[in-house]
Amino acid sequence: MQPLKLRGIIPPMITPLKGNDELDREGAIRLTEHILAGGVHALFLLGTTGEAQSLTYELRYEFVELVCRQVAGRVPILVGVTDTSLDESVRMAAHAAKCGAAGVVAAAPYYFAPSQQELVEYYTALADALPLPLYLYNMPSHVKVFLEPATVKTLADHPNIVGLKDSSANMNYFQTLIYHLGERDDFSLYVGPEELTGESVLLGADGGVNGGANIFPELYVAMYDAAASHDVARVRELQRRIMRISTTIYTVGKYGSSYLKGVKCALSLLGICDDYLSYPYRRFRAEERARIREALEVLGADCKE
Amino acid sequence: MQPLKLRGIIPPMITPLKGNDELDREGAIRLTEHILAGGVHALFLLGTTGEAQSLTYELRYEFVELVCRQVAGRVPILVGVTDTSLDESVRMAAHAAKCGAAGVVAAAPYYFAPSQQELVEYYTALADALPLPLYLYNMPSHVKVFLEPATVKTLADHPNIVGLKDSSANMNYFQTLIYHLGERDDFSLYVGPEELTGESVLLGADGGVNGGANIFPELYVAMYDAAASHDVARVRELQRRIMRISTTIYTVGKYGSSYLKGVKCALSLLGICDDYLSYPYRRFRAEERARIREALEVLGADCKE
Amino acid sequence: MQPLKLRGIIPPMITPLKGNDELDREGAIRLTEHILAGGVHALFLLGTTGEAQSLTYELRYEFVELVCRQVAGRVPILVGVTDTSLDESVRMAAHAAKCGAAGVVAAAPYYFAPSQQELVEYYTALADALPLPLYLYNMPSHVKVFLEPATVKTLADHPNIVGLKDSSANMNYFQTLIYHLGERDDFSLYVGPEELTGESVLLGADGGVNGGANIFPELYVAMYDAAASHDVARVRELQRRIMRISTTIYTVGKYGSSYLKGVKCALSLLGICDDYLSYPYRRFRAEERARIREALEVLGADCKE
Amino acid sequence: MQPLKLRGIIPPMITPLKGNDELDREGAIRLTEHILAGGVHALFLLGTTGEAQSLTYELRYEFVELVCRQVAGRVPILVGVTDTSLDESVRMAAHAAKCGAAGVVAAAPYYFAPSQQELVEYYTALADALPLPLYLYNMPSHVKVFLEPATVKTLADHPNIVGLKDSSANMNYFQTLIYHLGERDDFSLYVGPEELTGESVLLGADGGVNGGANIFPELYVAMYDAAASHDVARVRELQRRIMRISTTIYTVGKYGSSYLKGVKCALSLLGICDDYLSYPYRRFRAEERARIREALEVLGADCKE
Repeated sequence: MQPLKLRGIIPPMITPLKGNDELDREGAIRLTEHILAGGVHALFLLGTTGEAQSLTYELRYEFVELVCRQVAGRVPILVGVTDTSLDESVRMAAHAAKCGAAGVVAAAPYYFAPSQQELVEYYTALADALPLPLYLYNMPSHVKVFLEPATVKTLADHPNIVGLKDSSANMNYFQTLIYHLGERDDFSLYVGPEELTGESVLLGADGGVNGGANIFPELYVAMYDAAASHDVARVRELQRRIMRISTTIYTVGKYGSSYLKGVKCALSLLGICDDYLSYPYRRFRAEERARIREALEVLGADCKE
Repeated sequence: MQPLKLRGIIPPMITPLKGNDELDREGAIRLTEHILAGGVHALFLLGTTGEAQSLTYELRYEFVELVCRQVAGRVPILVGVTDTSLDESVRMAAHAAKCGAAGVVAAAPYYFAPSQQELVEYYTALADALPLPLYLYNMPSHVKVFLEPATVKTLADHPNIVGLKDSSANMNYFQTLIYHLGERDDFSLYVGPEELTGESVLLGADGGVNGGANIFPELYVAMYDAAASHDVARVRELQRRIMRISTTIYTVGKYGSSYLKGVKCALSLLGICDDYLSYPYRRFRAEERARIREALEVLGADCKE
Repeated sequence: MQPLKLRGIIPPMITPLKGNDELDREGAIRLTEHILAGGVHALFLLGTTGEAQSLTYELRYEFVELVCRQVAGRVPILVGVTDTSLDESVRMAAHAAKCGAAGVVAAAPYYFAPSQQELVEYYTALADALPLPLYLYNMPSHVKVFLEPATVKTLADHPNIVGLKDSSANMNYFQTLIYHLGERDDFSLYVGPEELTGESVLLGADGGVNGGANIFPELYVAMYDAAASHDVARVRELQRRIMRISTTIYTVGKYGSSYLKGVKCALSLLGICDDYLSYPYRRFRAEERARIREALEVLGADCKE
Repeated sequence: MQPLKLRGIIPPMITPLKGNDELDREGAIRLTEHILAGGVHALFLLGTTGEAQSLTYELRYEFVELVCRQVAGRVPILVGVTDTSLDESVRMAAHAAKCGAAGVVAAAPYYFAPSQQELVEYYTALADALPLPLYLYNMPSHVKVFLEPATVKTLADHPNIVGLKDSSANMNYFQTLIYHLGERDDFSLYVGPEELTGESVLLGADGGVNGGANIFPELYVAMYDAAASHDVARVRELQRRIMRISTTIYTVGKYGSSYLKGVKCALSLLGICDDYLSYPYRRFRAEERARIREALEVLGADCKE
């Protein structure tokens, strides 16, 4: 199988829900079209933003099938297979392959905190067993361990491991990866936090997996283009807009989940999909919803509800 | 349904495996009988020591069925249903109920780190949906959050929440729970780390969920009896034996997983079951195995292999 | 010099202040007499509860001199010399020796987080240079590192290192120390959190360095006596009283500093000394003070203000 | 007093030592001249890289006096006054002012972990009492707390608080500060980790406080100039050189202190000053020293020893 060198914006799609185990199918279709209309370069399903860990496997399978059919090859689709059970990850990947996905993404197993040596063994066994190329996913705040640079360097030599998404926000870490792996044609480096896409791409990253692209896909595509063409003045102008989103829509309430609640609430206000959140999270109530509406209006978005 | 007030030693059974997705069925039967022969008061399947998170659901279902059939009502069985998806937890509990389990145990969802308010909502929804009484499981090193005393006090008023197992090793925390809840007839408090069973029961806890009882069940039963009868001299004598296990069998290598590897290796040396560990862990190799053998011999155990 | 084998209650004395760099000398004298009247076995000045790190060295020197003169040999006095500069620790210890202190206490240097090997080298150099016996102080929440059991075992062989106070509340850790060092005549083990004095002494510790003994010294002495004589029923009865203090006086407000604010406020209400706290802390205001008064009254204490 | 709007490279100078309480005075003079020859814009004494916390106050006073006299006004000098005692910080600042320093720098008090409200009160009291402008210093890995953006925004309105140095490496945090404060003429933002100076200045930061500028001052000045003039190609070229230093000289051994040991060892090999480290650290031994020499030679530096 042929490694992907994807470049650009790969939105980590939220999973539109009507209930804890019920997909918002119409919402998912509208959201897919909304995102694709923004010119994004790929899609990433069932990541942290997609609440994958909170969903049943049946629902995850249904969602992958639905979105793959809707996209119909217009952009590559990556599917999150992060699990604490290696065999469940492989099973999820088989389903993704069958639906037409182009690759899968896996954070470290997140119950036990593995050592770096255990991570090398785990990811090697996983990549050996997968039917699709694998992107590593560094998410220390959720899985308790970093994929240390030496570990990533070792794993990057596996023929079926083709890239890494870093959501640590630790740019010392990410710069170390760029230094070691940034010039390889067969390995891609993406940054998670959208606040860092500009500087990351300016310094050599391949793109951003940015949650805000669920709401404003064209903004993040514009940022990628500006940074990839070294237009610093434009990057700084777009950065202010991205930071306005970050410091308003993602910070209502004092929840660890404010970002996710804000994105789903905004999409609901824009008439795109339901804002149900699966446990342990609950959607915003009226007062918080009013603050998201206000933030959207300041940003010039057109609220439908 | 009638709440359980279990007292005593409830071993968190390891899950005997032959491969990453293959149960060691004969080993599981031998281990069940070995543990029951030690006079334990109940069994706990699919906890942290049971590697539950690393196993496929099919294997977990098979294991619960096998052990429940083997035990055949001789002691109550608790089943771990910890998951990041509430609906998968409920499904697992339904299976446990069908197999004849007496209760279920759930740590907090462990990918996202929920707030205390979210924990109250999550556990309330879970307890409402479960067909069996629920024991809370405080495991902050793995799930990143404490079930704070105020949260536990609130949840303890739910009619279907009947106890808590604490694996934090933070005795300030556990003493606070004993102070608030220790005298209730409808709520039980167990301590996870076996190094703390003596002092916990002396001070009012209801028992221990101690991994060493996979190997030496009668030792932990003796400790429970000594502490429950306030025999301090005997507690201190047994404590030295428990600490000898803790400081030898559980600390070979410098792994976060040394405890689990040690327990499985010891059971293999005693001829009880295979020592395969599911990913991300690997079993001990020859040199480490030799050190476990030596520790067992010093403890007077009879190695078969 | 001859090692101390102190047993019993060693209150970590608060430092009575009138301002950020002004000692409450009359309060310090009253507090000393109040504590000694409770039958405590020693005194510990300038620990965490003594706000040592927040005070100028001049004030610390003055305080040690004042209390040593007031105690006049009635009980041994230990002095905290914790610093990030080894030479400042030695200087403080020289002053303590001159004033007649019996030993010094040092947590790890707390700006850089040292490795275990660096801790061995640091404490060895410190103990070599000190004019008084040294007690180690395990305080991981403040200094970011544990003094691991292997490190403590190594240091315990230094002729001038004579004991350890553990404030981690991690009883797995403390039981490991008791197992390795509890039977040595030349090394003492004390527990910091007063909620754990009962069980610690029952299981073999030498005493408690309990902050509540500033307020109710006789209670903690009674707990020590009950535990040292293996009177479990009495331990459990006293434990309830200690937990009532812990869950009321130490938990007003949601500060990390609630414990310290509560102790100082209580002493002020009892007419013993001023409740000024040095930066970064501020004393309780009227509403919180009213809650402390209420808690004291429930406990039967006689508020003067 | 008039706020400073410093821009550029402000090396956090190491403190050359001959022993734990003995300054390497000749080394300090040579190092000062070496750094100034690189065209830096200011100097920062007694920060983390300067081992301030490990030094006696007498030695710190002597060092400030020596360097201020040597610099003789050629560049502004900032002096670290971080302490756990507010009054000791003020005393240090008075000395710095007397010696001719232009400003002082203070991380949060680092024994107790203060709340954000306590940080506001602490820094306000400190800034009120200081004779020189104050730069905040965000150093969460050492002081255990972040100066959260809302806290910084509040403090930035104090007339005597004129900037912030961030050593968190969390660029989400730093971008939030740039968004809120980056356009103010009376507040400066500097980044600590030199791996991030390029992207930080490209996105709007005012400069870097980069430890590598002790060794190669002209390299970091070149990076600042390239980034300030938006020359992305040049930034990426210089970034590779900076990362080569970071991944070789700063990572010999597996110490938390590898960076500091590496910088001091390199300066010793270049014949500039002694490489003694104060406790709890020890200098590199022969084998590690050989690896630093090799790294320096690959970088084209001319080792004298």
